[in-house]
Amino acid sequence: MIEVITSIAIARKVFREIRDAGATLGLVPTMGALHAGHTSLIERARKENDRVAVSIFVNPTQYDDPADLENYPRTFETDLEKAAAAGADIVLAPASTYLYPDDYRFRVTESPLSQRLEGAHRKGHFDGVLTVVLKLLNIARPNRAYFGEKDWQQLQLVREMVDALFVDTEIVACPTARETDGLAMSSRNTLLPDEHRRLAPQLHTVLDAGGPVEEMAAALGAAGFEVDYVERWNDRVLGAVRIGNVRLIDNVEI
Amino acid sequence: MIEVITSIAIARKVFREIRDAGATLGLVPTMGALHAGHTSLIERARKENDRVAVSIFVNPTQYDDPADLENYPRTFETDLEKAAAAGADIVLAPASTYLYPDDYRFRVTESPLSQRLEGAHRKGHFDGVLTVVLKLLNIARPNRAYFGEKDWQQLQLVREMVDALFVDTEIVACPTARETDGLAMSSRNTLLPDEHRRLAPQLHTVLDAGGPVEEMAAALGAAGFEVDYVERWNDRVLGAVRIGNVRLIDNVEI
Repeated sequence: MIEVITSIAIARKVFREIRDAGATLGLVPTMGALHAGHTSLIERARKENDRVAVSIFVNPTQYDDPADLENYPRTFETDLEKAAAAGADIVLAPASTYLYPDDYRFRVTESPLSQRLEGAHRKGHFDGVLTVVLKLLNIARPNRAYFGEKDWQQLQLVREMVDALFVDTEIVACPTARETDGLAMSSRNTLLPDEHRRLAPQLHTVLDAGGPVEEMAAALGAAGFEVDYVERWNDRVLGAVRIGNVRLIDNVEI
Repeated sequence: MIEVITSIAIARKVFREIRDAGATLGLVPTMGALHAGHTSLIERARKENDRVAVSIFVNPTQYDDPADLENYPRTFETDLEKAAAAGADIVLAPASTYLYPDDYRFRVTESPLSQRLEGAHRKGHFDGVLTVVLKLLNIARPNRAYFGEKDWQQLQLVREMVDALFVDTEIVACPTARETDGLAMSSRNTLLPDEHRRLAPQLHTVLDAGGPVEEMAAALGAAGFEVDYVERWNDRVLGAVRIGNVRLIDNVEI
């Protein structure tokens, strides 16, 4: 039976009891609207830890666009079923006011990486991400926390934050889960109307085909996307596009 | 025998062993140049915890003035003797590069309180303070951490950060230690030439006498200080002055 916790005080008590019992804990932070990408993280956490917690929290501070926050899919009841089926023991689903008792006065910031790529197109996004991830890690104090490679820049920033601030959690990176047509799984995919859903896999197809980033951007534009960026970063190429009201990101190894 | 640790990796291992043994830990964060104010914090920590650690680290990120950082007194050998005599088991004295592997890319920020009072006169000061305190708390994971009331604004910000970020450490406030003439103990006092040292207790005398803050500021100016601020804040009055190259702060309950 999955345990749903909304109170931070109760969560800290429950997580402390797990630690005191000498059990290991894996945390999978999510914003809900769970899909097979999330459940693959939960399944991995299940294999590697005695106890598994999933946090479900649509974090307002990482949205610069109120419409994007409002439209983000919320499917709490089916999320609970999926989390339980994938092996989670605990779902932490606090209210926003519980996670931000300070009304977001205290923030974790980073520069310059957090201002590039996604950060250049979503003002303040990574401040919100880093701050909420730190809060969740401090509340749960997991041995391991699981993040998908789809959000590549987020993954790097979270790893580097954990190292910089000496957080005692191992960050585990998990491969991007994809639909059979190559589209990276994302909660936002459910917002795509059919014609856009048919186009969406082109983002992965174009990035995966390789070549100069300018040509990839041109190909995506020609396919019907508005291109936010296509950039190489170390051994990856990262892209972000918009189609209708939905923004899609992806990245592949070069 | 006091244990001196400079490596973060070793420190984390030592503190983990303390936790795993079920012992409680008190941390006293300092910038060294220990005086009776610090030793009163260590003694209190000694009474309330099984093990006591003192960190000695002159944190470069909280100085906006390189001369102030350079002139800050450094007395490591006598610090070790004083810490040991007051009951500390461990001194954590890392190199700056060890605490900032990220070269200070990741920061804890706060607004608006951290921009007022001390923050208005020392740009970026509290970002540096909050960031280093969070790092030290994450490294040591103490049950309790001890801060002096002399740095009143710092104490409030640290308390509020710990609440906002769900750090599992109790912040213990300790009364300001004073010389017999009322001067708040401070490592910077040793930098005062005799004539300034004779004047310095006037800061406390004027704040303690009460009255309108404008009159206090005028009295301090007439006594020979350059006044950065005198302000009421809740049930305290806080003041900061400069005399020669030395900056002094103090605060008293109204």
